[in-house]
Amino acid sequence: MTTDKIKIAVFGGSGYGGSELLRILLAHPNAEIALVTANEHAGKAVGAVHKNLFGLTDLQFERAPEDLSTLETIDVAFFALPHGQALSLIPNLPENVKVVDLSGDFRINDKDVFKQFYKLEHTADELQSKFVYGLAETNREAIKSANYVANPGCFATATLLALAPVVKSGLLTGKVIVDAKTGSSGSGAKAAANTHHPQRMTSFYAYKPFQHQHVPEIEQHLREIGEFPHDFIFMTHSLPVARGIFASVYLETTNLLTNEDVKNLYELFYKDSFFVRIVENSPDINWVKTTNFCDIAAHSNGKQIVVFSAIDNLVKGASGQAVQNMNLMFGLDETTGLRLVGTNP
Amino acid sequence: MTTDKIKIAVFGGSGYGGSELLRILLAHPNAEIALVTANEHAGKAVGAVHKNLFGLTDLQFERAPEDLSTLETIDVAFFALPHGQALSLIPNLPENVKVVDLSGDFRINDKDVFKQFYKLEHTADELQSKFVYGLAETNREAIKSANYVANPGCFATATLLALAPVVKSGLLTGKVIVDAKTGSSGSGAKAAANTHHPQRMTSFYAYKPFQHQHVPEIEQHLREIGEFPHDFIFMTHSLPVARGIFASVYLETTNLLTNEDVKNLYELFYKDSFFVRIVENSPDINWVKTTNFCDIAAHSNGKQIVVFSAIDNLVKGASGQAVQNMNLMFGLDETTGLRLVGTNP
Amino acid sequence: MTTDKIKIAVFGGSGYGGSELLRILLAHPNAEIALVTANEHAGKAVGAVHKNLFGLTDLQFERAPEDLSTLETIDVAFFALPHGQALSLIPNLPENVKVVDLSGDFRINDKDVFKQFYKLEHTADELQSKFVYGLAETNREAIKSANYVANPGCFATATLLALAPVVKSGLLTGKVIVDAKTGSSGSGAKAAANTHHPQRMTSFYAYKPFQHQHVPEIEQHLREIGEFPHDFIFMTHSLPVARGIFASVYLETTNLLTNEDVKNLYELFYKDSFFVRIVENSPDINWVKTTNFCDIAAHSNGKQIVVFSAIDNLVKGASGQAVQNMNLMFGLDETTGLRLVGTNP
Amino acid sequence: MTTDKIKIAVFGGSGYGGSELLRILLAHPNAEIALVTANEHAGKAVGAVHKNLFGLTDLQFERAPEDLSTLETIDVAFFALPHGQALSLIPNLPENVKVVDLSGDFRINDKDVFKQFYKLEHTADELQSKFVYGLAETNREAIKSANYVANPGCFATATLLALAPVVKSGLLTGKVIVDAKTGSSGSGAKAAANTHHPQRMTSFYAYKPFQHQHVPEIEQHLREIGEFPHDFIFMTHSLPVARGIFASVYLETTNLLTNEDVKNLYELFYKDSFFVRIVENSPDINWVKTTNFCDIAAHSNGKQIVVFSAIDNLVKGASGQAVQNMNLMFGLDETTGLRLVGTNP
Repeated sequence: MTTDKIKIAVFGGSGYGGSELLRILLAHPNAEIALVTANEHAGKAVGAVHKNLFGLTDLQFERAPEDLSTLETIDVAFFALPHGQALSLIPNLPENVKVVDLSGDFRINDKDVFKQFYKLEHTADELQSKFVYGLAETNREAIKSANYVANPGCFATATLLALAPVVKSGLLTGKVIVDAKTGSSGSGAKAAANTHHPQRMTSFYAYKPFQHQHVPEIEQHLREIGEFPHDFIFMTHSLPVARGIFASVYLETTNLLTNEDVKNLYELFYKDSFFVRIVENSPDINWVKTTNFCDIAAHSNGKQIVVFSAIDNLVKGASGQAVQNMNLMFGLDETTGLRLVGTNP
Repeated sequence: MTTDKIKIAVFGGSGYGGSELLRILLAHPNAEIALVTANEHAGKAVGAVHKNLFGLTDLQFERAPEDLSTLETIDVAFFALPHGQALSLIPNLPENVKVVDLSGDFRINDKDVFKQFYKLEHTADELQSKFVYGLAETNREAIKSANYVANPGCFATATLLALAPVVKSGLLTGKVIVDAKTGSSGSGAKAAANTHHPQRMTSFYAYKPFQHQHVPEIEQHLREIGEFPHDFIFMTHSLPVARGIFASVYLETTNLLTNEDVKNLYELFYKDSFFVRIVENSPDINWVKTTNFCDIAAHSNGKQIVVFSAIDNLVKGASGQAVQNMNLMFGLDETTGLRLVGTNP
Repeated sequence: MTTDKIKIAVFGGSGYGGSELLRILLAHPNAEIALVTANEHAGKAVGAVHKNLFGLTDLQFERAPEDLSTLETIDVAFFALPHGQALSLIPNLPENVKVVDLSGDFRINDKDVFKQFYKLEHTADELQSKFVYGLAETNREAIKSANYVANPGCFATATLLALAPVVKSGLLTGKVIVDAKTGSSGSGAKAAANTHHPQRMTSFYAYKPFQHQHVPEIEQHLREIGEFPHDFIFMTHSLPVARGIFASVYLETTNLLTNEDVKNLYELFYKDSFFVRIVENSPDINWVKTTNFCDIAAHSNGKQIVVFSAIDNLVKGASGQAVQNMNLMFGLDETTGLRLVGTNP
Repeated sequence: MTTDKIKIAVFGGSGYGGSELLRILLAHPNAEIALVTANEHAGKAVGAVHKNLFGLTDLQFERAPEDLSTLETIDVAFFALPHGQALSLIPNLPENVKVVDLSGDFRINDKDVFKQFYKLEHTADELQSKFVYGLAETNREAIKSANYVANPGCFATATLLALAPVVKSGLLTGKVIVDAKTGSSGSGAKAAANTHHPQRMTSFYAYKPFQHQHVPEIEQHLREIGEFPHDFIFMTHSLPVARGIFASVYLETTNLLTNEDVKNLYELFYKDSFFVRIVENSPDINWVKTTNFCDIAAHSNGKQIVVFSAIDNLVKGASGQAVQNMNLMFGLDETTGLRLVGTNP
């Protein structure tokens, strides 16, 4: 292993976020995984838990070290833990360790809002101010110089990429409605009633009306992108597939726009963003599954606009985006190790 | 067979609409199927084509008669044919034969609008005026005395049942947005690229933005229910399940409404409608599949309201509703033969 | 409620066995559900737990009575409890109460074999001798006069119906191999790792090689049907669907048989069995789902025979068959309340 | 593009075989795709047809050249065409062009057997003798020096890898039974009745009993591996997933073998084969999907043995194996460009 490689610790390697980080990082030309934690699987081979990786790595899961200050040889730590855990762990890391946190712990600047949506006290207020929001397509320069990155939520990623060009353009008027749908892997790797296969395979339903925790991070970042004094209505639904988020975004513009105008607006905004593809008609979660792409289509009916965006919730919506952020933080091309190719079918 | 039974002809028995009509009518205590047509399967046993019915009926498919005027012994004819065919057939039926048409041919009163959305000349203008829109929950009395019923479209059914109480209440203001999703059986019984299993099973995508042919029938019937001068935005999506439509309806009210207010509004409106169930949180297509129920939940966030409705597109969205209309037209309890029980799972 | 109705208690109403018993019995013309137990849901409406039944029944779940001897007004009790519970409950019932047990507790006559496969002491030895094996198609007369029926396992049902005609014929030679596949509802209504939707939807795997607990009940009943000194190899696999068992049975005959011979053998054997349908080519779980049918096809290649059988594991493999047994025990036509019609699609 | 790269022509680029060849070859470090044909899509961008590849390649589909003899600059041609087409095309290629044919055209040495199973005259008899069977794990050295490789069928691959160690060991006795199951992508990229989503998603059925065209190629290659005078019964079934083949192989050994013996036999046989993983309990198609792995588990019950194997039908069962063969034919490490990592979930 050459000294060129980025030395990586993954906290929380047994969930789907961890699983996808490992899949990507094991094949990343500049990455060396030095530590992967999973307390309940400590001592087990990674390939015995994530059977897709059997035969591809000799890594073993370890317990998280008691004293994180010993991790000085680590270059970057990914946290793929349940909400609330990174909050108490990250302050104990040595200062030289960069951080990408996949949880919601450091996405919200206002501690009262954080408490309202996450039902937790924000105990690392000072550290919060050092965190940069990790949506590369809208925040690339800030990420490049960041030591701490809050990786966006999966719904937030699909929604923000669909809205950013219009918000930036200043053409938005009236309320914004987002009808978002997610696959079952969004519920995590642990079996639960709502992911019980006999029912889930023929289900579609809504959940958490008007209350999803991704709302404040979306509104906060939209205000960083442009003016956003608008009513924002966000609704989440469950799809009977494993992977994928699809957002249908309904908005209104101040001026009449043709379909061509809208398409140009999006193509221009994302011309330097490899991972956003502007497509005809509609994106389909089928074409982005297992990849870091966000496919977008936008249509106009005068001043009424609909924008469709599709991502893989575990890749562009989590682990792929986290590696994209690592790439930027370490001066690499943002696509390094991330040109993951989807499949047909 | 007693003379009490309603003598029925089913035109178009080989598609999914026909398949579900047969499933329901074969077990209906007042129904006798006298004729079921399917030109490409003429002479075959119904149970050889719809293998679910093997062993349950001796019926055979027949060619549609050349001269429909001979069908005087028929009491009611169901038309489950592709759009455009009922238009030329129904005028040739004897006058005593009642009609339920499951296609879009007689749903639109304005022949120009019809032509715009269906790309067909409406050649039965006079007959059109005799057709009643067959949404029992909003139009029950008219259906009872009708001889000709235009059975609502599947998306229209889910959308209208979600919107009717608010439109009737007069509380609606601003635009209405409907994000609707359908299962693959909505595309019919013939194999096609968009229902090819290897891709469809992991797909979710939007189609026909701003152009779905159910829009005019929805707007037309909303104006029959109450005032409806509102912008109406309707978007259709494809779900990777066989059965089910789920509509998420976003609207605004003139007054502040609590969740309790909204629920009361819906419960009151549907108190005499057996097939509409007001549920907690969210309906799920899983709980209405194979049944004639429409499950609805509504939530308020002040003046912003979201209404979720779920139906089986082939039952309440097509054949079940058609039989419900037949029941009303013949003075039967509307639930006769339609207390179809769903399954868990 | 007339006194003609059979008064029924269902023990274990919250699982899938209970769910399907309720679906069937609520619509059964001769049934009256007097008690349905589910300790964890005691006091809740049945329609709040099995949301498919919302609006169709006012029944509530109750705790199982402490003292079962009080249930004298009950005509028949169904037990749909985890293995091992009926064993201790049934001996406490009043003698007049007939019993259909859906668990494995009373299927095995040899208490040592029972212990080996179920890891439980058989504590109701005397009662065991009163139990009749509830496979109507092979044991109809015994069931008619039985007070205690052990309802066959789901895999056992599919396998026995595929094998019975050949075993009865005396033409069997050599070993028998059964490759059986089940849907995810076979694992029950509780979420578990092997039914976690994100993985299960794209999984197919084998489990319990050479060790499935249905083996002894199959071998025992085959010896009741005819001679069965043969090696019997039985392998279970998991399918990514909710419902359905498909068994592929490989066997050899002493004589050369044509395809026609084999088909005749099966049609003759099942000519009085409404629920067994002999089909062309292959059965498909899709055509038996939600029904009490067992579809069978058999093919010959000289002396090598393959038999395919398909059932719905929760209906013919559990609750439908249990009601079929009840019908026989009470002198009803065995199809009463069981002409459940499947759907296309 | 350096001159080191292997110049590649892909005939039949629009099907699933072609789609997967393109996915793999576009990321292969030693591959340069010089031509990809698809007559019906000629002139279209590859990324417009295989939308997973949109943004990843500028390749366009071309018509197959009239005169194949002009393709002298091509190093290797892959044929991913329907059965019967390669037969007439390959003889026209320049002699320097190596060939990997993914169809069944050159797998069967006996032209009468070929005709019986494929219903085609074998018109390239002479060329047939130059073809080597492309199952690297059993035929590696022959492939290394071959110019013409017949890529094994998908079912044949799963079956042969499950059987090879036992056949080679000489321990086999009695008949062999293979119960094989495939995902819907095995039926190809064109929509058809048996892959119509509304039905396929809840289906499982058998097809072509005793008649599958992979039988002769399996038997032929087993006789190349060792003695194989045994009865061979092979049955194919359809799974409601897009990808994956699972074979359950039932056989008998002359000697008693423990589970440990069996496992050792397989591990030893495949110790130098990166793409075969010997796993505990059972393989699962979920863990090999989109990869070139074949996972195998074997269990003993004395002399009765069951072997389970799982592959992705489109990768190890088709395009991945084809590239593995190319690697060997060009002196590359056989895993080059093929360490495709599966996903969890």
